[in-house]
Amino acid sequence: MAGSEQAAPRLTMNDIRAAAERLKNWGRWGAGDEIGTLNYTQPEDIIAAARLVRKGKVISLALAYDSRGPQGGKSKYPPVGRFNPVHVMLRTGTDAYSGVLDHRKIRSADDLVVMPMQCGTQWDGLGHIFYGDQMWNGYDCRTVTSSGAQKCGIEKTKEKLVGRGVLLDFPRMLGLEFLPDGFAITNDLLDRAERHFGAEVRRSDFLLVRTGQMEAMLAAETWDGYSGGDAPGLAFETLDWLHEKQVAAIATDTWGAEVRPNQTDEANQPWHWISIPIIGLTVGEIFYLAELARDCAEDKRYEFMFVAPSLPVTGAVGSPVNPLAIK
Amino acid sequence: MAGSEQAAPRLTMNDIRAAAERLKNWGRWGAGDEIGTLNYTQPEDIIAAARLVRKGKVISLALAYDSRGPQGGKSKYPPVGRFNPVHVMLRTGTDAYSGVLDHRKIRSADDLVVMPMQCGTQWDGLGHIFYGDQMWNGYDCRTVTSSGAQKCGIEKTKEKLVGRGVLLDFPRMLGLEFLPDGFAITNDLLDRAERHFGAEVRRSDFLLVRTGQMEAMLAAETWDGYSGGDAPGLAFETLDWLHEKQVAAIATDTWGAEVRPNQTDEANQPWHWISIPIIGLTVGEIFYLAELARDCAEDKRYEFMFVAPSLPVTGAVGSPVNPLAIK
Amino acid sequence: MAGSEQAAPRLTMNDIRAAAERLKNWGRWGAGDEIGTLNYTQPEDIIAAARLVRKGKVISLALAYDSRGPQGGKSKYPPVGRFNPVHVMLRTGTDAYSGVLDHRKIRSADDLVVMPMQCGTQWDGLGHIFYGDQMWNGYDCRTVTSSGAQKCGIEKTKEKLVGRGVLLDFPRMLGLEFLPDGFAITNDLLDRAERHFGAEVRRSDFLLVRTGQMEAMLAAETWDGYSGGDAPGLAFETLDWLHEKQVAAIATDTWGAEVRPNQTDEANQPWHWISIPIIGLTVGEIFYLAELARDCAEDKRYEFMFVAPSLPVTGAVGSPVNPLAIK
Amino acid sequence: MAGSEQAAPRLTMNDIRAAAERLKNWGRWGAGDEIGTLNYTQPEDIIAAARLVRKGKVISLALAYDSRGPQGGKSKYPPVGRFNPVHVMLRTGTDAYSGVLDHRKIRSADDLVVMPMQCGTQWDGLGHIFYGDQMWNGYDCRTVTSSGAQKCGIEKTKEKLVGRGVLLDFPRMLGLEFLPDGFAITNDLLDRAERHFGAEVRRSDFLLVRTGQMEAMLAAETWDGYSGGDAPGLAFETLDWLHEKQVAAIATDTWGAEVRPNQTDEANQPWHWISIPIIGLTVGEIFYLAELARDCAEDKRYEFMFVAPSLPVTGAVGSPVNPLAIK
Repeated sequence: MAGSEQAAPRLTMNDIRAAAERLKNWGRWGAGDEIGTLNYTQPEDIIAAARLVRKGKVISLALAYDSRGPQGGKSKYPPVGRFNPVHVMLRTGTDAYSGVLDHRKIRSADDLVVMPMQCGTQWDGLGHIFYGDQMWNGYDCRTVTSSGAQKCGIEKTKEKLVGRGVLLDFPRMLGLEFLPDGFAITNDLLDRAERHFGAEVRRSDFLLVRTGQMEAMLAAETWDGYSGGDAPGLAFETLDWLHEKQVAAIATDTWGAEVRPNQTDEANQPWHWISIPIIGLTVGEIFYLAELARDCAEDKRYEFMFVAPSLPVTGAVGSPVNPLAIK
Repeated sequence: MAGSEQAAPRLTMNDIRAAAERLKNWGRWGAGDEIGTLNYTQPEDIIAAARLVRKGKVISLALAYDSRGPQGGKSKYPPVGRFNPVHVMLRTGTDAYSGVLDHRKIRSADDLVVMPMQCGTQWDGLGHIFYGDQMWNGYDCRTVTSSGAQKCGIEKTKEKLVGRGVLLDFPRMLGLEFLPDGFAITNDLLDRAERHFGAEVRRSDFLLVRTGQMEAMLAAETWDGYSGGDAPGLAFETLDWLHEKQVAAIATDTWGAEVRPNQTDEANQPWHWISIPIIGLTVGEIFYLAELARDCAEDKRYEFMFVAPSLPVTGAVGSPVNPLAIK
Repeated sequence: MAGSEQAAPRLTMNDIRAAAERLKNWGRWGAGDEIGTLNYTQPEDIIAAARLVRKGKVISLALAYDSRGPQGGKSKYPPVGRFNPVHVMLRTGTDAYSGVLDHRKIRSADDLVVMPMQCGTQWDGLGHIFYGDQMWNGYDCRTVTSSGAQKCGIEKTKEKLVGRGVLLDFPRMLGLEFLPDGFAITNDLLDRAERHFGAEVRRSDFLLVRTGQMEAMLAAETWDGYSGGDAPGLAFETLDWLHEKQVAAIATDTWGAEVRPNQTDEANQPWHWISIPIIGLTVGEIFYLAELARDCAEDKRYEFMFVAPSLPVTGAVGSPVNPLAIK
Repeated sequence: MAGSEQAAPRLTMNDIRAAAERLKNWGRWGAGDEIGTLNYTQPEDIIAAARLVRKGKVISLALAYDSRGPQGGKSKYPPVGRFNPVHVMLRTGTDAYSGVLDHRKIRSADDLVVMPMQCGTQWDGLGHIFYGDQMWNGYDCRTVTSSGAQKCGIEKTKEKLVGRGVLLDFPRMLGLEFLPDGFAITNDLLDRAERHFGAEVRRSDFLLVRTGQMEAMLAAETWDGYSGGDAPGLAFETLDWLHEKQVAAIATDTWGAEVRPNQTDEANQPWHWISIPIIGLTVGEIFYLAELARDCAEDKRYEFMFVAPSLPVTGAVGSPVNPLAIK
């Protein structure tokens, strides 16, 4: 076990408010900005990221979208209202075989999906979390109505989720199979991981944080307790670290990025209160990092080209995604 | 106008059957293969594709997914049963503003989408079209049931849709705003476009074919006649060209890739009968190529890194996609 | 043409406010009431309604729920965001025929529907319309959140939509095929229809108002202009008439019950502002009344047992319904 | 405990085949019939049923449709692919409160449901089960395609689900809280219940069978094991009884009507193999009978008017329903 590293101080609402003041990026990219820290990425970053492709290997970081996905497990917390994708066929090969399509003079299958945008491997967009009555860049939260997000819709990111990816593999560094629930990844641990893996996190990076919790679930063949539940994850203080580092986005293999139980009872997911609406940070969740972690351990290279295009559903506050690490 | 180029010979079922014999790739990548021509891509192709990133520009080839999408227009053909995405909110900023979320101690929005996999910018997977009672690689079409595609599900492609992209911009070459309905892109035209744009199509490429039809629709502010309707597109003979070239995949800005009215009344979408189940070709449709075309005309470079990851919905026969051209 | 009857006076916001004061039923059935005028129905009314069953004939007042339904037509008004039901199969007879179900040892079909509650023949529940920041009985409109209606959900009506039905068939009375768009059904016309058809409207009745607009649409084979569009319908003054009569509910064959263009530009659907939140009136729309009208004309009996159970979807603000007239 | 009554003989495929021969109603109502035993109901039966309304009380037999419904529980059997209704809002009172609807000049809420037709209180239509390659009346099972049931769609029943209802309350007769899983309701027990409750089952009746299993689940606050699981229910031999009695339809408070574990391992739900496709019997499931049972015990009248209109979704093989007992 990792000992004292998992201890993280308790927070009060004052701490959250102070962080909001300290870390606020509103206006940094203009009054009309809707993509926040994705602005950090410059053309040269994309060129440099592409240069990281050296062995021609593509690794998907997406969990399969299906009825065996991470939603629907039992939880001691209130339900968040998400469910696994419902994939249904509109036309099938059995229709074809039965001859019932032949009047169309083509035998084809079609299909349909019903899915919460946040049900599996996903991006949280900047319309996903509010701070008081405001959202990213100071927009009124009432711009996210039943008709969708009139500001900061995920479609605004459609050309932005490309750059250098860096994996920090905490269980590997700590000699654990996986970090336990409640384990807080602190700034010290982040610094140590950069050194350990020889992978400095820089402006515009897409930082991937592996806790191993997902593999623990997959091994146990249950998602009970995963979605909405306790988890290892980022300590509240990492907001400062990420802000200073100027990462473009961050993603983890847990359902909610930050450590749970949370560091306070006064707020639910306090790290989210700041990261998304105040810093303007796009956050990836439920990323499948096992495969990538194996590959990085093998070739000792923890940096790669990262391409994870959101699906431009107009006004969406999140997006399912098949993120690719290209090495 | 392009004159005789748009004339394409009429086909009979015998021509289709002969093409099936001539172009059949079944078994080429083993009896268990489920991805067809995506196998052409080798690690060195991915490395070479990444080297094409020179100015650090990302261009999305996806149409927005929303109620103004290409489905639902009037058509003289029978309906194909697709509709525009239905995006609905599960929690909103107006809920937040109204204070009804505060018992959760976090103010957040969530959302959900109901969408046919083929309703917008999309990949047709190898389970999408059958030839007789068989599908790609000779699989029984009954492996695509109401429970989805047990073979050739789109999830099998999740790490494969990366490589060198090449754009052939036919209206630009021909001095047209857009190709008219019924205009057949022939092998001669493909050859000519390669020379014209200095962009030779090679093994493993992702070939993007622009007809301009989509911009004509967008300019006219109507999708009437688009989905399921007449269109410029690939002549049947291009199957041989694509087969010889060994492209990994092909995509167009039309709803159905091939020329319509079709070159025969005996089959509907005869090019599809062969491309997908016989050659094993993954086909992209409803790609938004206007932006990319402008950029290529400007920098005179019609090749680029292409990354278009499918959403790995288990057993799906297609996938919405946000394809990226990275230059 | 019906001449002066269709003239209806213009309204101002003051008229609407005055009606709200004059007709307010809040508190009439207690501070906790959630069903409004459905309270008018007493056991003896149900017994009496059952006695109207004399020939043992059941007539459905529901339009079929399918892709040919009344949504999706062209409209000069802003879209209301409804669409026709999407019915998809989860298992099919073609699966059965193909043998792919036999491992289950039963050959069965299942299915699924995606449908707006208001897309076809429907009840508007008391959570459907707000007056200022309040809804029926003075409840705060914020009780209808993204999680549904915490007050006045349609499930509260599940045992209430039974009683005496009365049909007033205006086109028949006026010798018209159908009432034209903009035709206002006034109190005078309601009185005249009662006398004409020998069917006095009484406390607790379910009043069905036929305009014939739906049959005009069906005959024209288009729904263009129907949903959200202009229509014949109830004049604003009928609110007083319905209030005095103490009807349990009212339903029409139009999409929105009241006359359109509306009698004012200051409010959209001013009759709805009062009927649902102020009077507490449950309103049926898109009722198919053609068949019933024919039968009533034939047997000269315009009263019948009416049974139209809502689907108790918890927190819904409306419900699809198959209303039955039993004669 | 009810002792020997729950013993039911084991079946072979030969028994099932013999029952199919013995009980086949195909052609009985003409070659074009699509509603089977619902034909038994004649006008006089509806008149007589209405005469049973004596105290003016309406009792709903529907479970609420929501996320706490009977689907999604743990099961030792393979999943049947159904899920609880997903009810989402298209416009809300919180939108209204936030002022974002005011440009519409009306403050309203709308909503939408995604639901399997068989997820809650439901009718199984005649397209739901196949016998070999055939369905009710000998129709080819291939008439139920991915486009829905071209024969025997539930919409054909829209005016037929009205008549005399009879409740047989087995746990009450046997002095039990509820019948245990595996308890088989035999013909002897049916006969005995008729006598016990003074309620003879007759041609055209809608027979409601209470096992109490649902209340056991509700009391235990879990649906684990309910949907698709073991249950008390009808013995295979009741097919003969129901056939002789000429009931119009039957419904139970269990998910699947018949006793489980089934009386054979050779077929899954053998009673369904015969009841729906061979006899042409419409079957209700997941009916909430607790309230009705209490009322019948109180007034000692086990017969009532029964009105349970299906939702006429074109081509559906089942329907959610709010069945009403009117006494």
